[in-house]
Amino acid sequence: MTKAVYPGSFDPITNGHLDIVQRASLLYDAVVVGVLNNTSKRALFSVDQRVALVKEAVAHLPNVSVLAFSGLTVDLARELGAQVLLRGLRTVADFDGEMRLALTNRCLHPDLETVFLMTDARHVFLSSSMIKELASLGGSPAGMVPEHVARALIEICRGGTSPRFEKG
Amino acid sequence: MTKAVYPGSFDPITNGHLDIVQRASLLYDAVVVGVLNNTSKRALFSVDQRVALVKEAVAHLPNVSVLAFSGLTVDLARELGAQVLLRGLRTVADFDGEMRLALTNRCLHPDLETVFLMTDARHVFLSSSMIKELASLGGSPAGMVPEHVARALIEICRGGTSPRFEKG
Amino acid sequence: MTKAVYPGSFDPITNGHLDIVQRASLLYDAVVVGVLNNTSKRALFSVDQRVALVKEAVAHLPNVSVLAFSGLTVDLARELGAQVLLRGLRTVADFDGEMRLALTNRCLHPDLETVFLMTDARHVFLSSSMIKELASLGGSPAGMVPEHVARALIEICRGGTSPRFEKG
Amino acid sequence: MTKAVYPGSFDPITNGHLDIVQRASLLYDAVVVGVLNNTSKRALFSVDQRVALVKEAVAHLPNVSVLAFSGLTVDLARELGAQVLLRGLRTVADFDGEMRLALTNRCLHPDLETVFLMTDARHVFLSSSMIKELASLGGSPAGMVPEHVARALIEICRGGTSPRFEKG
Amino acid sequence: MTKAVYPGSFDPITNGHLDIVQRASLLYDAVVVGVLNNTSKRALFSVDQRVALVKEAVAHLPNVSVLAFSGLTVDLARELGAQVLLRGLRTVADFDGEMRLALTNRCLHPDLETVFLMTDARHVFLSSSMIKELASLGGSPAGMVPEHVARALIEICRGGTSPRFEKG
Amino acid sequence: MTKAVYPGSFDPITNGHLDIVQRASLLYDAVVVGVLNNTSKRALFSVDQRVALVKEAVAHLPNVSVLAFSGLTVDLARELGAQVLLRGLRTVADFDGEMRLALTNRCLHPDLETVFLMTDARHVFLSSSMIKELASLGGSPAGMVPEHVARALIEICRGGTSPRFEKG
Repeated sequence: MTKAVYPGSFDPITNGHLDIVQRASLLYDAVVVGVLNNTSKRALFSVDQRVALVKEAVAHLPNVSVLAFSGLTVDLARELGAQVLLRGLRTVADFDGEMRLALTNRCLHPDLETVFLMTDARHVFLSSSMIKELASLGGSPAGMVPEHVARALIEICRGGTSPRFEKG
Repeated sequence: MTKAVYPGSFDPITNGHLDIVQRASLLYDAVVVGVLNNTSKRALFSVDQRVALVKEAVAHLPNVSVLAFSGLTVDLARELGAQVLLRGLRTVADFDGEMRLALTNRCLHPDLETVFLMTDARHVFLSSSMIKELASLGGSPAGMVPEHVARALIEICRGGTSPRFEKG
Repeated sequence: MTKAVYPGSFDPITNGHLDIVQRASLLYDAVVVGVLNNTSKRALFSVDQRVALVKEAVAHLPNVSVLAFSGLTVDLARELGAQVLLRGLRTVADFDGEMRLALTNRCLHPDLETVFLMTDARHVFLSSSMIKELASLGGSPAGMVPEHVARALIEICRGGTSPRFEKG
Repeated sequence: MTKAVYPGSFDPITNGHLDIVQRASLLYDAVVVGVLNNTSKRALFSVDQRVALVKEAVAHLPNVSVLAFSGLTVDLARELGAQVLLRGLRTVADFDGEMRLALTNRCLHPDLETVFLMTDARHVFLSSSMIKELASLGGSPAGMVPEHVARALIEICRGGTSPRFEKG
Repeated sequence: MTKAVYPGSFDPITNGHLDIVQRASLLYDAVVVGVLNNTSKRALFSVDQRVALVKEAVAHLPNVSVLAFSGLTVDLARELGAQVLLRGLRTVADFDGEMRLALTNRCLHPDLETVFLMTDARHVFLSSSMIKELASLGGSPAGMVPEHVARALIEICRGGTSPRFEKG
Repeated sequence: MTKAVYPGSFDPITNGHLDIVQRASLLYDAVVVGVLNNTSKRALFSVDQRVALVKEAVAHLPNVSVLAFSGLTVDLARELGAQVLLRGLRTVADFDGEMRLALTNRCLHPDLETVFLMTDARHVFLSSSMIKELASLGGSPAGMVPEHVARALIEICRGGTSPRFEKG
């Protein structure tokens, strides 16, 4: 059985992330989406909100699960018994950072293989940060994120606190 | 009549920006420089100061006007009736972010065309942030920004508040 | 009146090229597609065939014309009285070569402005060479080039000489 | 059962290629190395020689097989029933071409997933072409290719024909 | 006598930095490592700690000295009478920023030549920020920094203040 | 005494190359320009012509000499007793190839250090190939190459054989 872990901030999940998860769900027996609880980087959504948004987005994929984690991705992979660390590649701007991460993780956990999938051309220019900026300026993120994420973005940007974000 | 909008932070305007505005003023009937009032990003100069510095720099170009704006560039373009969103390209490091912006803006406003001009080789390595850092360390920005901007930079870096920055 | 020249090999024209021509036809009063007759570089299609394929692809655009040329693009632009040299940008791999060309052309003809448009995300990874290689290996270029170009590619790759390519 | 196909020219196989094959042999049930018989590109080694050199290099990996192919990689994958098209990533210079290939192959065969592995830092700057140039100038490729490949390179660069290259 | 200055934050010094210093110590009569006291950028180690860590790392190199500085690198170079400003190049992601710096410094001090050395392939993906993040998450930076730096990193990430960091 | 070797095709020498040689002549006791006699790559100028053109361009620099060589650069450096292999960096497109070369040469000759200088911004987009293409199409290379090189380019592109190219 091959298990893959797909780590990230997912603040929030985009259609590009979702595309990667869907492809991976066909390649691996199990895919675990790891939502990073990074205390040093300020997120728009709380980690519980981010987990909830991912869960709703992947609900139709039976072999995909979602959890929050903190600390090193390699430690999460060890705990889960994952053989594959999954990453999406979009544009050349991602490349250096991803290579750096992959080679550092190889140092720390030589048996975990980093595997890159390529997002679809339609999603190649999506990024969580640009989508957040867009929404904060009143623009519509429709077509860039799943519908329930679009609603959550618009709500949070209006300053409202959403009752639907209860601890996942 | 073709109207182009050239958005940016212009904190402060550099000789590279000015080069782009001058080229654009020959290509389009009207060019509007939009100075972004981005409340989430801390600027060295206030938006009024930035508008004033741009205005002085483009005073010799009759078909160029300057204004402050907040919100989405595509909304500004709609309001102005602009058909062209103008951007300068310097180096490969600009490329990915610019492509992302252009494709996002195309989603939001399909009739607005993003058009890229290339700065002159002499200005290819100028950036507002490097110039601000340089000035803050006591270096002279001469030759990188218009003269009145150099004076303003030196003044603001000495901690003085300039009487010449009155609301534009 | 603003006239733009869009030079290239167009061996053959792709949906990415066509996208650029269509955008340009909305921005400029006249667009001239210049098909380069480069004797030193071996093309799959003759220059007359390439001109004919472009003509058919742009037949619905009244302000677009097509011609073959040899020599320098700046000389063509001078002859035509064009103020704009149009280029499409796809990925970062195009960037350096395009910048080099633009700065060289500026040396040779300072009044001609190189203007870059960005192809749609769907076409960002199309290239004439990859499409030719694909067709030569028996793959279908459908969706990457206009239909009549797909037919011409398949025909020429089968080794047949097409009666439809008569001097344009 | 997951089967991966790893296509390339392998003219000749380098330690970087071998690193990728070894990693892949741990991730997939079967790995097929496809040696491209590209008639339009002149190779240093014949396709039979290249297959023989790869076979010797992967002899210790029981789930790896080697074959020559011509035509499209997607057709080879279909024939083999492979779900994964495997590629190695080295440096940013590989990126654009790989992305273009991956997206073209997705058009042609949507169920085949292109998966990228990253070569070890030690091999990041190896390329078959540089190694061939090095050997042709009398330099030693030791440490860049497996030993038997180094011997074959030196032999072929001396102009000798090797008796060990009999049809694989 | 040729004197080179090698400026940086060194927060903390990595094996990649050390590799550059060692190479430079063979090329130049004297090498001065300048540890930037950048008040606007928050460092993990104090400038005195950083100087001490560098000093211990280069203790075996008789023609290398270490000092803290603030302000412009070109001013430091002038004071020291250095003819060479030394920088390491790792990956393409460094390139644009380095070029910008080099050309700005050439404006400010035309007689100071920026010289780039290339780190060894083994260190190409090391960066101080990734190492700090790694250590802060409880990972071991062994093999990425000198041993005494690894100890200091682990100590500081545990929140302890080290008695060994006394002013240099 | 530090001796640097600066290898290249120099087909022909450009103002960018010349800029690098001039900077290097201030940094090193001796600079040897090595003109590569690459039999496998077709050059516009013969190796003797290329040597003669470089010689004329560097005649004012007393510590610079010029010679033709074939084979590996590291062998030339060994023969000359050079400690430094000098290369110019222009744009990001040069980076990967240069890194690959530098790391390969380090394998072959660990005591030879590759040192990169950065061309002036004015020359950043010059390349011998573009200049040759330009001249072959009847364009003027003035300002891109030294005057005597411009004359030689125009002459050779007209098809004339120049009496001034006698064996250097």
